[in-house]
Amino acid sequence: MKFYDSLGLPNPDRVRIALAEKGVLDQVEIIQVNLWEGEHRTAAFKAKNPSVTVPLLELDDGTALSETTAITEYIDHTFEGIPLTGRGAKERAVVHMMQRRGEQKIVDAIGTYFHHATLGFGPEIELNQNKAWGDAHLQKTLDGMAYFDAVLRDQRHIAGANYSMADITVFTGLNFSETYPKVMVPQGLTALNEWRACIGARASCAFVPETMKGR
Amino acid sequence: MKFYDSLGLPNPDRVRIALAEKGVLDQVEIIQVNLWEGEHRTAAFKAKNPSVTVPLLELDDGTALSETTAITEYIDHTFEGIPLTGRGAKERAVVHMMQRRGEQKIVDAIGTYFHHATLGFGPEIELNQNKAWGDAHLQKTLDGMAYFDAVLRDQRHIAGANYSMADITVFTGLNFSETYPKVMVPQGLTALNEWRACIGARASCAFVPETMKGR
Repeated sequence: MKFYDSLGLPNPDRVRIALAEKGVLDQVEIIQVNLWEGEHRTAAFKAKNPSVTVPLLELDDGTALSETTAITEYIDHTFEGIPLTGRGAKERAVVHMMQRRGEQKIVDAIGTYFHHATLGFGPEIELNQNKAWGDAHLQKTLDGMAYFDAVLRDQRHIAGANYSMADITVFTGLNFSETYPKVMVPQGLTALNEWRACIGARASCAFVPETMKGR
Repeated sequence: MKFYDSLGLPNPDRVRIALAEKGVLDQVEIIQVNLWEGEHRTAAFKAKNPSVTVPLLELDDGTALSETTAITEYIDHTFEGIPLTGRGAKERAVVHMMQRRGEQKIVDAIGTYFHHATLGFGPEIELNQNKAWGDAHLQKTLDGMAYFDAVLRDQRHIAGANYSMADITVFTGLNFSETYPKVMVPQGLTALNEWRACIGARASCAFVPETMKGR
């Protein structure tokens, strides 16, 4: 199984953490794709993934899986260990709902700000920037941080009592936000910062810099 | 169970079709939410769904589920009948992947065009229009139609041999595209149009106007 990765970007990091939570990271061949150099836009990569995104998980039978939630479903239903996508109809639904909110309110929001209102991956990659659209997503990201802080005042994890892929999504989105566009999680969001420290302390996040684990 | 619906919009229609495929549409109390009148932005609705979107599925225990894929996971794991989210790790992953592509390439693309480059729901609802951003999504939608036409030249359904929620997503997105922003599916996309006629002929799509079933 091959994992096309780009270390430090939120969606590839989601797959890395999911594999690590299942204890199978060492069973996967990891191939780094340099997005700053446009390595995801080559014809060879596009043949594997017409959406030209990482992460991509290539199975031994040649099946190429893109879209991070889809890859997480594969990992969760293939390997033993902690459930990542919920158990039972209601928990599955809540995990998917909160995971999607994590994408919309954090990962996609800060990604839009990064790609459209900052240099992003640089002028040769960011060919269709729209600064007004990007700028609007800075406040959306900050609103998202406040939303998840409020959620975490009432429950231990993003989707309820249990750890799930929803935690992974929000955690990697916050790391990206602080690392690249330098949009920091406000210190006053104490529930979010405490939760972040707990998630970051898991063995699956050993690769994440200590500075990205809440404060 | 209460289903907050807005008939004819793609994401609510996805839930309607999923319930109908399971044969349980008559077990649900359906409440129409008029988005043109801003009924999704009331405080009462926002308390149920902070993302202020339909569809929303309210369970008898008060749990409010938003995000269409999450709701579909709930329906698929609660009711007997045809599987909508795939069976087994690999099929589940492919269904989720193709479903997500259906959202990105059709539903979200045409939605962005509708909300930003046309009147959308009208000036009192569309408060943050960005015409350039909207316009870019017209071509993205057309590219998405061509992509799914190519997919369907090689396989019977969007995610492979079997019917799934990925078919529902693309089908409802195309209906919306033709109904509201009037972006038509090109007649030359014969595989897409033939597939659309097959999906539209299912009992679950009895509510869809005949003109929306391919040509």
